[in-house]
Formats: sequence, C-alpha cells, structure tokens
Amino acid sequence: MHALRIEKKKLAVREINRPEPGDEALVRVLLSGICNTDLEIARGYAGFQGTIGHEFVGVVEESNDGSWLGKRVVGEINAGCGACDLCAAGDPRHCDGRTVLGIVGRDGAHAEFLRLPLRNLRLVPDKVVDEHAVFTEPLAAACGILECVNIESTDRIAVIGDGKLGLLCAQVLALSGASVLSIGKHAEKLLIAERRGIETTTAKAAAKRRREFDVVVEASGSPSGFAGALELLRPRGVLVLKSTVQGAGHAEFDRTRLVVDEITILGSRCGHFEPALDLLKKGAIDVDSLISEEYPLTRGLHAMERASKKGVMKVFLRP
Amino acid sequence: MHALRIEKKKLAVREINRPEPGDEALVRVLLSGICNTDLEIARGYAGFQGTIGHEFVGVVEESNDGSWLGKRVVGEINAGCGACDLCAAGDPRHCDGRTVLGIVGRDGAHAEFLRLPLRNLRLVPDKVVDEHAVFTEPLAAACGILECVNIESTDRIAVIGDGKLGLLCAQVLALSGASVLSIGKHAEKLLIAERRGIETTTAKAAAKRRREFDVVVEASGSPSGFAGALELLRPRGVLVLKSTVQGAGHAEFDRTRLVVDEITILGSRCGHFEPALDLLKKGAIDVDSLISEEYPLTRGLHAMERASKKGVMKVFLRP
Repeated sequence: MHALRIEKKKLAVREINRPEPGDEALVRVLLSGICNTDLEIARGYAGFQGTIGHEFVGVVEESNDGSWLGKRVVGEINAGCGACDLCAAGDPRHCDGRTVLGIVGRDGAHAEFLRLPLRNLRLVPDKVVDEHAVFTEPLAAACGILECVNIESTDRIAVIGDGKLGLLCAQVLALSGASVLSIGKHAEKLLIAERRGIETTTAKAAAKRRREFDVVVEASGSPSGFAGALELLRPRGVLVLKSTVQGAGHAEFDRTRLVVDEITILGSRCGHFEPALDLLKKGAIDVDSLISEEYPLTRGLHAMERASKKGVMKVFLRP
Repeated sequence: MHALRIEKKKLAVREINRPEPGDEALVRVLLSGICNTDLEIARGYAGFQGTIGHEFVGVVEESNDGSWLGKRVVGEINAGCGACDLCAAGDPRHCDGRTVLGIVGRDGAHAEFLRLPLRNLRLVPDKVVDEHAVFTEPLAAACGILECVNIESTDRIAVIGDGKLGLLCAQVLALSGASVLSIGKHAEKLLIAERRGIETTTAKAAAKRRREFDVVVEASGSPSGFAGALELLRPRGVLVLKSTVQGAGHAEFDRTRLVVDEITILGSRCGHFEPALDLLKKGAIDVDSLISEEYPLTRGLHAMERASKKGVMKVFLRP
C-alpha cells in the first residue's frame, strides 16, 4: 500500500506492506487531513519515524469483533498500554507507555490502511460526511478546553490565532454563550469567525485591551503569542495553551506578574471525541470554510508543501 | 514616631509624624516581621516609597468604631477601593485601585503606628502570642494554596524552597494528609520540616524523581526553580508559583512540554487570614523554629542586613 512516511529525516510516499492488525482493528482510510503537527513532525519534531498523519475517517476491514466490520469510524489517537491506572480509568491520553497515531511509535493515517485498538474507534453518525468527520480530532482538541476550564456565559474570552485550531476553538467557545474575540492576522480567515457572530480583531488592536479577558486561548503557535496572551488577562484570569510551538518551543514570561495577578496557565492537548462528533452531527460548527484543497495520497509531498503555505487551511489526502 | 522608610532609593529609620487615621483605624504596632519582599522593596522592587513592612501585630488606638479600641489585631494587607465589584464581593486582593501595606501606595508596619481600614483588621485570639501572630500574613499566603488547588490526601506534593515561606507551605500542605517532600539546600532548615514528619531532600536528589508529583510548589524564589519544578510534575500535574522572583523575574520554560503533558501553572500570592489564625490558635504550625532574631525598630537597618544573610530566618522589629 502507499503511505506518506518520514524515514531518516526524509519525507516520501512509499510502497509498504499493509499493516498486520494482530488483536487491533485494520481500518481502510477513506480520507485523512494534514495537521500543523504533521508539518512539525516532517521537520523533525519528536523524532518520529514512520507513516505520519492522525486525522482520518475510515472503514473497519478486519477486527476480532465482527460487529465492527464495515463500520465507518474515526479514532482517538492515543493508544494506551491498557494496564496502567490511567488506562484502567478509561483515559490513556497520558499513559506513560502510550503510542500516538502518526506521532509516537505508531504508523499513522496518511496511508491506505492503519491499525488501532478497537477501544480507540468511534462510530461516525450517518449524517456526518467524510469531509466533516476528518475534523473530529482537531475539533475534540478544541472541545478539550471545556474539559479543563469552567466557562461561564458571562466570560470574556480571547482566542489568539486564526488558523484551523484557533477558529475551531473560537467556535466551540462561542457556543457556550460567552463573548468571544478572535485575534488574527488574516482578514479572510477572521471572516469565518465573523460569519458565526464572533467578534474579530488584529493582534495590534487587541494589545490595547489589556487585562480585559477572563480566559485567553493561545492557538497561534507563535513564540510571541505567549507574552501577548498574558497581557490580555485580568487578575485571576486563565491562559489556555493549545499549540505546541514552532521553533525551540521555549517561551519567556514574567513570573512575578503570574504570582501578583494570580494567573492560571493550563496546557491542553487532546480532547474526547464524543462531544466533537456530537457537534458535527448537529452541524453546530462551520468546518466547510476550513477546507482548502484535496490531493490523492500519491501526491502527499505536494499536499504537505501546500499545507505549509500561508493562507492554506485544511488539506485532505485521499488514498 | 520612628519608621523604617525607603525614600529616594535610600533606606533609613526616620522620625516622622504619627499617621492621621481619618476614617481608618490607627494601630500601635507591637511587633513586626521582616519578609523577603521587604528586602526586594529595599532593592527597588515595585518602586515603592515610604514605610516598608507588612507583617505585624498591634493594638487599635483610634477608631470610629469604639468596640475595636484596645483590641489586639493583625491586618490583611490589601486595602481595596471599597466600591468596585471585587471589593463589594469582600475580596479586595485584586482591586485595581488597591493600596498594599508597605508595598503599594500605603505606609507599612515597620513603624510605631500604622493605619488600615477597619475591614482589614482581624482580632488575634488570646492564646496566640505576639511572636506567633506576626506570622499570620505569611501563613495565610501558604494557606492560599488551598484556596486555588484541591489537595487530596493521596496527593504527592513537592515544595521547593526551605526558606520561611517554603517551610510554612510544607507544614500547611502536610496537614491535609497528603505526602509532602520538602526540597532545600540547608540541612538545619530542612530539619524544621523533618520534625513535623515531612520528608526532605536536596534539589540534586529530587531531580532524580522526575514526573513523580501531583503538585509542586515553587517557593524558593530562585530563577532556576521554575524549570526544575516542571520536571518533577506528572502529566496533568499542578505547579503553584508562590514566590516573586529575585532579579528580573523572568523565567523560561518549555511550552511544548506544558501542552503535551497538560500541566497547570497557578500563580498564588495572598491568602485569607482566618484559616491562618485558626491554625496558629490550634498550635498546628511550628513557627517558633522560624524565628531567628529580634531588634528594636531603631536598629531597623541592621535588622534588614541580618535578614538578608543566608541562614537567618524571621527577624522581628519591636518599636
């Protein structure tokens, strides 16, 4: 089968054997989406070797449990050891021995087939088309904010970043009834938020609104985003970090400000899939506007290049 | 009256007029304590001008409300505007227009008399001697951790720093039944924690216990304390920052680690006085071991110099 792989720092579409599922499920990939994390991994982040990609929708082709055969599924990307306390509690997202689809120790989704434990799979409701289902994983990451912050309808929230993740976060948070300000650089991207009734502005204009926000979500991935985010927060405000950072990943901040104003900083990565699938089923999130281009898997290299261009949003690969 | 004042960057004991209380209370100071923040203010932190000091016990000498006259009191250091939403809700600690005793826009406690709003005063129970009552403010800051983190008796907690604040934090947290590790540099200071049944170790030995702790409290004030603190935390752990930092106050950290491991960072400053007074009344905290020396107020400069020496803990001034 074809797979978009990074091997010895070189990214290429290669012909490899179809995975042997063992006691996991074999999934035929219908469509996969390129995430910014894929671009980082292609640049060497996390030292991953193998097939990249972790956003997909597919059909179960082989499984120990016959009831799954032929079902259309998406998959939670963290596969736990199944034995530790975290896994036993049903949440392998921080299992020490976990593999992560296309990110840590497990071949990913930009391929004709992938394997995942059955417990990772989630049925896709019939109403959700493939092109929307691929957004389950990033939308779950946006919904993950609600797992860690208690959002009140009276909260003033700023979301920094008008990329795919930023726009998903802004939409999810706006559904809570809170007032959301989307901060970005690209008028055409901010328009996607505006069409959902979300206020938008530029970083420069936002900088004048110091100490105004109860919650600030940093989803720009920009190293400078961090200090700017802190400035927007009221005392006792909450800063949610959603992006791993381009480049070194180090940020500097004023620790004394954090203590004096009693700021909370929350790192947030993956979310549960169920709330995301529910939002997609209800048509509550505009994902269509986030889709830019689609390529056959065999043109994976070109697709990755396109996905890295400014202004290009979600790029799909179809095996 | 005498007062230890910083004026035009020069610290000195000066003869000034007794404060006019206006609609506030006039308090005759019985004893005040030198805090590390006093040392930082003397070095120019926060640009404060006036009488320094914010830890004290005293007696009410003048007040609009006669029932307070002659009462022995301590005082919450943040004096709010009394009109904003925060003040109306009874918590002026983040009021934008607040003054802070001996720190922001209000003469402090290293003096024969001070003034504070009546609503800031708390009666000291008879059982609590002056030398213990002076610890109400820093002990309240330690108790403030419990206002922002829900500590479980099964939690593994590390407290970095064996200074006064670190030892108060370790003692308060150990009362919750959680397992507490006190990390410091000074055997004789760590002994104070050990006598309370708290495990202790050096920073070097602690560095081998990566990802072991549910909660880490940074109370060392050392710029390097921050990165070390993050290393000790398990995924989804909580880092509590208690110290403003010596020097520039800037810290660098690995933002990607924060996101991937979904770490929470909480800045924590002042706490309510009631839980601290309650602990002092019960004799639940060893503060005697934290007292190093006492000087008359007129020797304030010498006392400040002593308080800045390694190994010297709480230094008292007696007007």
